[in-house]
Amino acid sequence: MQIEILTLSELTPEIQNQVADLYQQLNANNSQRPLSEILDSDNQVLFISCKINNLIVGTALLSTYKVISGYRGMVDDVVVDASHRGKGIGRKLMQKLLEEGKKIGLDEILLFTGHHRTPAIALYTSLGFHLRKSGIYNLKLN
Amino acid sequence: MQIEILTLSELTPEIQNQVADLYQQLNANNSQRPLSEILDSDNQVLFISCKINNLIVGTALLSTYKVISGYRGMVDDVVVDASHRGKGIGRKLMQKLLEEGKKIGLDEILLFTGHHRTPAIALYTSLGFHLRKSGIYNLKLN
Repeated sequence: MQIEILTLSELTPEIQNQVADLYQQLNANNSQRPLSEILDSDNQVLFISCKINNLIVGTALLSTYKVISGYRGMVDDVVVDASHRGKGIGRKLMQKLLEEGKKIGLDEILLFTGHHRTPAIALYTSLGFHLRKSGIYNLKLN
Repeated sequence: MQIEILTLSELTPEIQNQVADLYQQLNANNSQRPLSEILDSDNQVLFISCKINNLIVGTALLSTYKVISGYRGMVDDVVVDASHRGKGIGRKLMQKLLEEGKKIGLDEILLFTGHHRTPAIALYTSLGFHLRKSGIYNLKLN
């Protein structure tokens, strides 16, 4: 098992297909942004992948940005292939993500997850995340 | 009153001081990132300002990033000078932010705000934001 950062130079149609298939397990109906956009150097996003036998079986993304209140990272798209769950892959992806976040000097890492997603919440709180006394609001434009 | 995007080429020590004073009203003890970092071209953040008589009296920031699930914008640092509240400046800043977010093709705009911040919540919901059934978690690294 390899936990590593995926870069644009490694992107192949095969990797794009693997990620598309994996992500579809999470949201079968949602549209997906292509990896070429995500890995573009203008997009300040770290793409952490877990590979087993050269197949991507897990992802966790860390988007980074600087605002007045600090240098922030936002976690998105934490997915582990259904046939590889229970092996601690989610934890390993998140540990790598936190390590990279510290390395680049982030002040804070944020994430949001559904109130009903008990295993995910247990993972995040065990890694030191705290529930804020705030609500998360969204507005869909597309 | 002018609602406009602040760019790096316009940044002066005077503007930095105005924003620092304004932001201190919100968080007197919190450290602040310098505007030079926020306005840097590597940082995909739109800085919306409200100026009255050439003085910055309000800000709203929109950080943008692409992940598999979409092209997202996150709202931060919405602040209006205490002596200029009740003039609809927060709404005008947010309207400009939404307009710019649509223009660059965002799929979704996100924000979080304290459960106790009733006027802010009223503003955001009146602009079309919906409370998600999710919790927001953070981990401070600094």
